[in-house]
Amino acid sequence: MTPFRPTVLRWAAVAAWLALSGLPAAAETALRGTGDLGIVIERAVGRVLLVENSGRRRLAEIAGLGDLSHAAAVFSRDGRYAYVFGRDGGLSKLDLLTATVVKRVEQAGNSIGGAISQDGRLVAVQNYEPGGVKVFDAATLDLVADIPATYGDGSARSKVVGLADAPGNRFVFTLYDAGEIWVADLSDPARPGLRKYTGIGRQPYDGLVTPDGRHYIAGLFGEDGLALLDLWNPDAGVRRILDGYGRGEQPLPVYKMPHLRGWAQAGGKLYLPAVGRHEVLVVDGASWTEIARIPVKGQPVFVMARPDGRQVWVNFALPDNGFVQVIDVPAAAVVRTLEPGPGVLHLEFTPRGEQVWVSVRDQDRVRVYDTASFAEVAALPADKPSGIFFTARANRIGF
Amino acid sequence: MTPFRPTVLRWAAVAAWLALSGLPAAAETALRGTGDLGIVIERAVGRVLLVENSGRRRLAEIAGLGDLSHAAAVFSRDGRYAYVFGRDGGLSKLDLLTATVVKRVEQAGNSIGGAISQDGRLVAVQNYEPGGVKVFDAATLDLVADIPATYGDGSARSKVVGLADAPGNRFVFTLYDAGEIWVADLSDPARPGLRKYTGIGRQPYDGLVTPDGRHYIAGLFGEDGLALLDLWNPDAGVRRILDGYGRGEQPLPVYKMPHLRGWAQAGGKLYLPAVGRHEVLVVDGASWTEIARIPVKGQPVFVMARPDGRQVWVNFALPDNGFVQVIDVPAAAVVRTLEPGPGVLHLEFTPRGEQVWVSVRDQDRVRVYDTASFAEVAALPADKPSGIFFTARANRIGF
Repeated sequence: MTPFRPTVLRWAAVAAWLALSGLPAAAETALRGTGDLGIVIERAVGRVLLVENSGRRRLAEIAGLGDLSHAAAVFSRDGRYAYVFGRDGGLSKLDLLTATVVKRVEQAGNSIGGAISQDGRLVAVQNYEPGGVKVFDAATLDLVADIPATYGDGSARSKVVGLADAPGNRFVFTLYDAGEIWVADLSDPARPGLRKYTGIGRQPYDGLVTPDGRHYIAGLFGEDGLALLDLWNPDAGVRRILDGYGRGEQPLPVYKMPHLRGWAQAGGKLYLPAVGRHEVLVVDGASWTEIARIPVKGQPVFVMARPDGRQVWVNFALPDNGFVQVIDVPAAAVVRTLEPGPGVLHLEFTPRGEQVWVSVRDQDRVRVYDTASFAEVAALPADKPSGIFFTARANRIGF
Repeated sequence: MTPFRPTVLRWAAVAAWLALSGLPAAAETALRGTGDLGIVIERAVGRVLLVENSGRRRLAEIAGLGDLSHAAAVFSRDGRYAYVFGRDGGLSKLDLLTATVVKRVEQAGNSIGGAISQDGRLVAVQNYEPGGVKVFDAATLDLVADIPATYGDGSARSKVVGLADAPGNRFVFTLYDAGEIWVADLSDPARPGLRKYTGIGRQPYDGLVTPDGRHYIAGLFGEDGLALLDLWNPDAGVRRILDGYGRGEQPLPVYKMPHLRGWAQAGGKLYLPAVGRHEVLVVDGASWTEIARIPVKGQPVFVMARPDGRQVWVNFALPDNGFVQVIDVPAAAVVRTLEPGPGVLHLEFTPRGEQVWVSVRDQDRVRVYDTASFAEVAALPADKPSGIFFTARANRIGF
C-alpha cells in the first residue's frame, strides 16, 4: 500500500507539510500517527480541512478538489491516505501526512460517493453519469474494473446509488432507474463476479450495509417500505420490510430525504429516520419489524449511534437544522437538545465515542461536544463545513 | 498526545528508524500511516516484533522489555505508541514509527496486563504484587493515581485481574482474593471515583467488558457461574449467570484456563470457551442464558469472532494446541480445522477481518491466513511468538 519514494522526495514532502501546516516547524512533528486524523469537507471552496481529534485542532488545508457538494471520503488501511469523492466525478487521493493531493482523476461526469474494499486495495465510485461503478487501484488510481449499470434491453444505463463495501471484497449497490440491487465480487478484479437482484422496488434512492457486513438495505422513494438483502444467504433474494416506512399514501412534505448511511445500530436494534415525520423509528434487527417510535424535534436527517450504542444522535432538515438531539437508548427518549447553530449538516464521533464533531455550515464552525456532559469542548473555524470523516473509518465495514 | 520534539531530534529519530528497520533507506518510507501496524510479543527474549499487516511483513525488532510472559499491549489513540505490560511489572511505551523504547517504568513487582482510557490520556496497569491498579499519564508515564486493592479490615491487598476500560473514562477490574468487582471513574484523575461490588463469587480469575462497553463479566475459578455487572444500570449490582459454567462439581482436568478476553460477540450472541470440556458455549446476549454448545477438537483457550461476526476462531490447550478451528456462525458448527503447528498461542484479525495472524510458538513462526479461503498467505519468522496486537485496538472499547 505504501508507494516507493526516493529519499530526497521524502524530505521534500516533509518540508512541504511543515510549510502547508502554517505552523512553525519546531512545533509540529514530522513523524506522527494517523489514527486520530480526519478531514472536514469545505464544500463551497472545493477544499478539505485536515484535523486531529486528540488535540481538537486544525492542521492544514488541502485545496483544488472541485465540486464537493455531497462529498464523502474513505481511507486507506494504513490511515495515511483519504479518497475524496466529489460531485463532479472527481476522485482525489490525499496524503494526510504531507497535506497534499497525491493524484486526482476525473472519472465520470456526475458522481456521488464511493467505498473501499475490505482488503484496502480497491476504491469504487458510484456514478450517475454515465451510470455505473468504476473500480480503481487504491495505490495508483488506475482503473481496474468498469461496471456499466445497464438494464432492460441493455441500451439504458441507470444512476447508481447506495454503494457500500461488504466482506469478501464485495461491493453492493443499487440502480435507481432500474430498481435493482447488484453485488459485485472483486476478489479477482480483472473478472468481477456480478449478481443482480431485479424488481426490488421503485426508485431506490440510497442503501447501506449494516455494521456487521451482513445485511444490505435500500430505501425506496417511489413507494413505501425498504428492500433487504441478507448477504449471508444471497440465494434467498431481496425481501420487503417495514411496509409502513416511507412517505405514506398521502405524502407529507419532505424537506430533505434522510441519509440512509447514517442509520444507527445499537444493541441489536436499528434506529431509522422517519421520512417526513418528526420521529425516529426503532426496528428489531432480528425480525426487521418496527418496535417503537421516538418523537424528535424535526424531520431527522442523520441518525447516528455513539460507538458504544448507549446514545443515538440526530440532526434535522429545515426549519430545525440548527438543532441536534440525543436519544438515550435504554430510556428510548430524547434526553438532551443542543443548538449548535443553523445548518447542522453532519456529525462524526471520535472512534471510542467520548466526543462528537458537528459541522455548522452557516456559522463556518465545527463544534466538538463531550458526549457524557454535553459540554462544548472546542469550536474550530471551517468554511461552510459539511461532511466530517475520521481515519478510524478505515477499520470499519460498510463505509 | 504528541510530545514536542525539536527538529534536530526528529531527523535523528528518522535515521534511527531506518537503521533499526534493517532495510535500505530508499526502500522504506520515513513518513507512514500507523493504521496497519502491530506488534508480536517474543516472550522468551523480552522483545517485540514490529509488523505491518498491509504488506504482511516484519519491520523491526524492539528489545529490552523484560519478562514478557503473558504480556499484553494497548495503543495510543493516534496509533503511534504501544504500551506493553510485562509480567515483571514493567510498563514500556514504544514508538512504532522510530522502533524505539520511549520510556520504561518498573511500576510493580508482579503484574498482568492493563488498559487505556476512552480518551486515550490514561494507561492503567493491574498488579498482583503489591495488589492494586496504578494509573499513568499516557504521554509521560507519570503516575497519576494509585488504587490499592485493600479489602476486609483494610490490612490485606488483593491481586487484581480482569482490568478493562469502559466508556466514561472508567476502568473496571476484579479483586481475585477478595471476590470483588470495582469500577473506577477517572474522569478526574486526581480524585478517582470508586464503586465496589463485594461478594461476587469465589476466586474471580479474569474479566472482560463486552465490545459495546455495557457489560462486565468476571469468570470464577472457585465455583461455577459467572458474575455479570450491567454498567448501564450500576445500581442493580452484580448478578450470577450461567450457573452451569465452570469446572463443575466433579472437575475435569483443566490444562489451561481459557482467556476471557478472547470471548466473542457476534450477532447478539456470545461464544464462550467451556472450561475443561471440548465445547464452545453459545449464550444469548439479552437473556444471558445458554442456547447451544458446539463440539470442538479440544479444550478451547481463545474464542474470537471475526470482526464481521460471520466466523468464530478457536485455539486449544494441550494436547491440541497445534490446531485452530473455525466455527461458521449461522451453521453453528465447525467448518474448517487448520493445523498451524505446535504451540498456537494467540490469534489477531486484521481490522476488517479478511485475514488472521496466528502465533505458532514452537515453530518460531507467525502464520497469516485468508479467512475466506483459509489459505495461508504468509509465514513470518518470530522468536517464540505469543500475543499479537494491531493498532486498530486503539479504536475499540474494552481492550
